[in-house]
Amino acid sequence: MRLSRYFLPVLKETPAEAQIVSHRLMLRAGMIRQSSAGIYSWLPLGYKVLQKLEQIVHEEQQRAGHIPLLMPTLQSADLWRESGRYDDYGEEMLRITDRHGRDMLYGPTNEELITDIFRSYVNSYKDLPLTLYHIQWKFRDERRPRFGVMRGREFLMKDGYNFDLTKEAALHAYNRHLVTYLRTFERMGLQAIPMRADSGPIGGDDTHEFLVLAETGESEVFYDSAVTDLSFGDRAIDYDDVVQCQSIMEEFTTKYARTDETHDEALFNEIPEDRRRSARGIEVGQIFYFGTKYSEAMGATVVNDQQEQVPVHMGSHGIGVSRLIGAIIEASHDDNGIIWPEGVTPFHCGIVNLRQGDEAADAACEALYEQLTNAGLDPLYDDRNERAGGKFATMDLIGLPWRITVGPRGLKNGVVELTSRKTGESVEMAPEAAVARIIEIYT
Amino acid sequence: MRLSRYFLPVLKETPAEAQIVSHRLMLRAGMIRQSSAGIYSWLPLGYKVLQKLEQIVHEEQQRAGHIPLLMPTLQSADLWRESGRYDDYGEEMLRITDRHGRDMLYGPTNEELITDIFRSYVNSYKDLPLTLYHIQWKFRDERRPRFGVMRGREFLMKDGYNFDLTKEAALHAYNRHLVTYLRTFERMGLQAIPMRADSGPIGGDDTHEFLVLAETGESEVFYDSAVTDLSFGDRAIDYDDVVQCQSIMEEFTTKYARTDETHDEALFNEIPEDRRRSARGIEVGQIFYFGTKYSEAMGATVVNDQQEQVPVHMGSHGIGVSRLIGAIIEASHDDNGIIWPEGVTPFHCGIVNLRQGDEAADAACEALYEQLTNAGLDPLYDDRNERAGGKFATMDLIGLPWRITVGPRGLKNGVVELTSRKTGESVEMAPEAAVARIIEIYT
Repeated sequence: MRLSRYFLPVLKETPAEAQIVSHRLMLRAGMIRQSSAGIYSWLPLGYKVLQKLEQIVHEEQQRAGHIPLLMPTLQSADLWRESGRYDDYGEEMLRITDRHGRDMLYGPTNEELITDIFRSYVNSYKDLPLTLYHIQWKFRDERRPRFGVMRGREFLMKDGYNFDLTKEAALHAYNRHLVTYLRTFERMGLQAIPMRADSGPIGGDDTHEFLVLAETGESEVFYDSAVTDLSFGDRAIDYDDVVQCQSIMEEFTTKYARTDETHDEALFNEIPEDRRRSARGIEVGQIFYFGTKYSEAMGATVVNDQQEQVPVHMGSHGIGVSRLIGAIIEASHDDNGIIWPEGVTPFHCGIVNLRQGDEAADAACEALYEQLTNAGLDPLYDDRNERAGGKFATMDLIGLPWRITVGPRGLKNGVVELTSRKTGESVEMAPEAAVARIIEIYT
Repeated sequence: MRLSRYFLPVLKETPAEAQIVSHRLMLRAGMIRQSSAGIYSWLPLGYKVLQKLEQIVHEEQQRAGHIPLLMPTLQSADLWRESGRYDDYGEEMLRITDRHGRDMLYGPTNEELITDIFRSYVNSYKDLPLTLYHIQWKFRDERRPRFGVMRGREFLMKDGYNFDLTKEAALHAYNRHLVTYLRTFERMGLQAIPMRADSGPIGGDDTHEFLVLAETGESEVFYDSAVTDLSFGDRAIDYDDVVQCQSIMEEFTTKYARTDETHDEALFNEIPEDRRRSARGIEVGQIFYFGTKYSEAMGATVVNDQQEQVPVHMGSHGIGVSRLIGAIIEASHDDNGIIWPEGVTPFHCGIVNLRQGDEAADAACEALYEQLTNAGLDPLYDDRNERAGGKFATMDLIGLPWRITVGPRGLKNGVVELTSRKTGESVEMAPEAAVARIIEIYT
């Protein structure tokens, strides 16, 4: 993309309404614009990151055999009356009446709707196991929306639901989701720690929240510092392998790590003192096993191999896709702006032309742009008639991991400059070497 | 995808509520499920097609330099009061009150919101031209939703908005959109004819609707049969070239083609009699130039090169992404089911194993599956223990363009069968030849 043709409305001033750094930086970098309280338009740069996150979530879910569909945003109140949650849910549920006076709602989650789909089509244990998921906009009418996309009212969530014949099979689905989430967050450059949590209005016994440590997190968390040494890495996973998924679950959840809701001071004190940590965390995902709560209430049964009708065992598993962007920025920024992890960056690298209009500089930039594009990469070329300082400030603010700087002086010596956003380190090299290096980084 | 692990709830019976063939086939093929009146869940197969259409729309819009963003589904009523449309819009607008008593609405379209974004950031003619678009769910509270996704209440639409300094520049944007739409619909295997139309509640002078001819269409249309001979084909387009876009617009819109709203009997009668046609059509897209209607009402101005504040010239341009699936099926089906055009098919081909459990047949199917997958294609392998008749019926119903049939008898002679869904023609060939043929078709 050539910046002269893009829509990147960066702000010079820090918006007064933003209390936390991710909110400030998303506004300043022209990623979002509030359209009403807790409701945002995703400007082109923000939308690009959102799409990258969605793509990673889709890939990791489908790798595990989970099947995507898409449920609508608006739901009939009737299904929620069946489960008993219509009255329970409280004021966070946005209730709507249509022109015919029917009670509707903007879905805050989808246990009822997915259970209805399941019971309409599936009758036999032979069709299990089954995990369905979608990535769709949800609405929760927060009393006091704040922190930008971290606590918005309209937000994008991945929610998946497993349907299994037995508790054991459903716990495998639970473990399988835990493994997919570990991979998903690591691909996004995040360390998200699974912590024992409280199930809240979803219900159920087993649940873990995934938390990214950050000072601005809404949850207080307590953990053994050894959990932060764990990393998923590049493991080969067979998602059908019950033992393998179970052992990864144990590896990542045996050490003490809990939110304040489930914190147990006595257990915490058994950790060696130098490894005891309390901190704040941002919740980016949660997995639940809740058994037959919804299947019994809504009659989602299958015939088992004894010809008996039995309710299916279920769980639900969510990732807060839009809030993840806030979490990533909280975890990765400096005074000059965002520092995108390479897995989610909106553009792979920036190209800064120090002297727009200089024949050699223009030609070198065009050549870099073309070579990177032809290699399947997506560079952002700042081809505006701006001073170098302004161009650098914009690139730092929007946080592309790599920048190639091109100027007449360097070109005389046959070099351009390749700069890491993270370390600030610059290296001079031939333009072809810079292209080769960028390609190497991303492939 | 292996069918034994997929969720494809095909129905044997024809659902009574479905009045038109696309609705019937989408229900029977397990593509959608109604969750409440005019609101659908997109089951895995339907969602897959929806994603393909979205992808084509994104590619063609971005090819023309249009920039994607994403506006929220819920909007504040205040912006609509500013434009004067809040009271005008009538009962089709779904009005919502949030917990604090604020008036909101589920966006039926986005002229107000995009104009608000524009005026917040853009001040100078130097930032023009600019075209922003998004693909987002909309809601229109139809009094009587019907015909499945063709006239649903919650629907997916691409809507794009151009901002230009002058009427001439805005008309170039209009022509550019017309060209992108011709390409878009042809890639989807559709002939969509641009017809002069009425602008309705959006307002404005210039507008064309794109109509797919089909008996079940909601609009009566009148045209010179010569327009159906036009095809866009594989032209190289420079979207900055005003003359080229203008001449394509003229090529496709000069011959008589109008909806009943703008039909002119006298002009129609000037067409040679043997080329006069009246028929029914499904509207799948519409482009508008409406000048300064919204920019004046909402103060979206820029400074021109004379230092004067002038309102920008705008247009809006929509594609009914979810209803397109209905239109494609109306235009492409037979008694046995859907016939997907290759550009939008949910899976590239089906593999039918005639004797699941037969060692040679299983091995041959696995090899085909692997080779096609490794080539970047997405086959659907029917690996269930079903009779051949049931497998064929399912494949015909869901309409994959190509089927490879594998059985022990053929394998003894070293052949499988490659069948075209469209012609029904089958050819025997070596498995490697079938793979090569499928790869050739799709690349």
